[in-house]
Amino acid sequence: MEIRSAAVIGLGLMGGSVARELSVRGVRVLGHDADPLTRVAALRDGVVEVMLPPSLEGIDQAEVIILATPVRSAKEILRRLGPCRGTILVTDLVSTKASVLDAAGESGVADRFIGAHPMTGDHRSGWAASRLGLFQGALVYLCPMEVSEAAARRLAAAFWTDLGAHVHWIGADEHDHLLAASSHLPQVASSALARVLGGSGIAPADLGPGGRDLTRLADSSAELWTEILLDNREFAGLAVAGLERELAAVRALLEANDPAGLRDWLRGAAQWSAGCRENGENPVESVAAASHAG
Amino acid sequence: MEIRSAAVIGLGLMGGSVARELSVRGVRVLGHDADPLTRVAALRDGVVEVMLPPSLEGIDQAEVIILATPVRSAKEILRRLGPCRGTILVTDLVSTKASVLDAAGESGVADRFIGAHPMTGDHRSGWAASRLGLFQGALVYLCPMEVSEAAARRLAAAFWTDLGAHVHWIGADEHDHLLAASSHLPQVASSALARVLGGSGIAPADLGPGGRDLTRLADSSAELWTEILLDNREFAGLAVAGLERELAAVRALLEANDPAGLRDWLRGAAQWSAGCRENGENPVESVAAASHAG
Repeated sequence: MEIRSAAVIGLGLMGGSVARELSVRGVRVLGHDADPLTRVAALRDGVVEVMLPPSLEGIDQAEVIILATPVRSAKEILRRLGPCRGTILVTDLVSTKASVLDAAGESGVADRFIGAHPMTGDHRSGWAASRLGLFQGALVYLCPMEVSEAAARRLAAAFWTDLGAHVHWIGADEHDHLLAASSHLPQVASSALARVLGGSGIAPADLGPGGRDLTRLADSSAELWTEILLDNREFAGLAVAGLERELAAVRALLEANDPAGLRDWLRGAAQWSAGCRENGENPVESVAAASHAG
Repeated sequence: MEIRSAAVIGLGLMGGSVARELSVRGVRVLGHDADPLTRVAALRDGVVEVMLPPSLEGIDQAEVIILATPVRSAKEILRRLGPCRGTILVTDLVSTKASVLDAAGESGVADRFIGAHPMTGDHRSGWAASRLGLFQGALVYLCPMEVSEAAARRLAAAFWTDLGAHVHWIGADEHDHLLAASSHLPQVASSALARVLGGSGIAPADLGPGGRDLTRLADSSAELWTEILLDNREFAGLAVAGLERELAAVRALLEANDPAGLRDWLRGAAQWSAGCRENGENPVESVAAASHAG
């Protein structure tokens, strides 16, 4: 790792895991977390060397600043971040990117900001869940500002590659549109299913392995996901509407007792799942796609 | 195991796994599968001792008959099953129960029929996926006929307990109503999500661990699930409609930009997932339940 110091603000699953990776690579880690018990644990475990005060005074000593808080805090911190002359790269780990880049535009570090979103995680959260290896093999989206310096872009890519991730550069709006389907919709679907099961008097223990897979995400933090979903509410709403259309379509096939139609509907999903798309085929005649085209 | 011989018809994931469990317990296994390569493999692996002909002539030599085919075949076989004088128990492994019990009522073995549904499985299928231990710790629903003999009831419970499962006696209609939510709805939700993702140009490789959990079931056999869903189409349709209502509710919260409402909606799911229901609480004010009550 070519950097000597980094500040990680927010020491939960994601930030804590970044801090651990930096620490084992000999980087001096400054840190902060709103939770006092987390601060004690991160110092005790020898991962964070210097705990910053709530004002974050001294953050500008770090060559890299990583904002690993929920979206609203990340934007608040960015907006009051001064020029940080010694800092080469400022980044975040937030699941939405357009509004974060807007906030970075109001900061003193716009020319060194690169938004980041690692596509990894766990239904568990907090410092206790953080660990080495979380980013190994993970996809990390990187969203540059128009004004982002070349040095910041190079360092952002090198940083995540060093942590074992694959980086993919993407525009912030395109990211948020994509993630509404690939990440925010699975969360909503899992929570919606859990609510239906709860309302039907079914306990988690009544589920088979498939039902358990589908409801695992429902355990995620309601606070965190409220922020993510509202920050991306337009794209998220469109994605939810797409899922409602697919469900209405399959319900109509059930009501019509239509084996051929139902088999085709299920096959479209199975062929996508088997990865046919990666081979250049397009087996899914999606209700969502059709209605967008129409 | 107190039995000496059993016939397993259908040697896929479920039937193959039952056959393996019986074989290692010293039970003489008769078998059949529609697929010739499966027949060869089951004999070669030393699990099935006697392969029955397509007519299933000789099936009445078995003390226990297990129908592990898809629902339509299971019902066809049942309807033409004679009195099987030497047979103590006839059972099936089909995911729906009311229509199977109806078919059993037309068979010569109604007084020895107990429907069974093991809540286990895998997105993989076929003899190659079958294995020892599949039923260890699994929940198995048992549905008796009104005319089922006490000996058949006792043997069905002993059979599954010996295979490591927990048995739960339930009426066929109640089973089908429950399973529409706990098993059929997760399959539909996973397939619907996969179709939306495919229609959005997202590949399986673009997903994080949560998205992968949610779409794993979408790979299931379209043929098998067409039969299951149509066999239970009324209850399945009601369950899908319940999921549509939850999605419409969360979409309205997104459109209203309502953090308190969205947090409560997500919390209801998280509290269910964390198992509060098992502690006698009822944190979910489900849209589905509310509309059933209204």
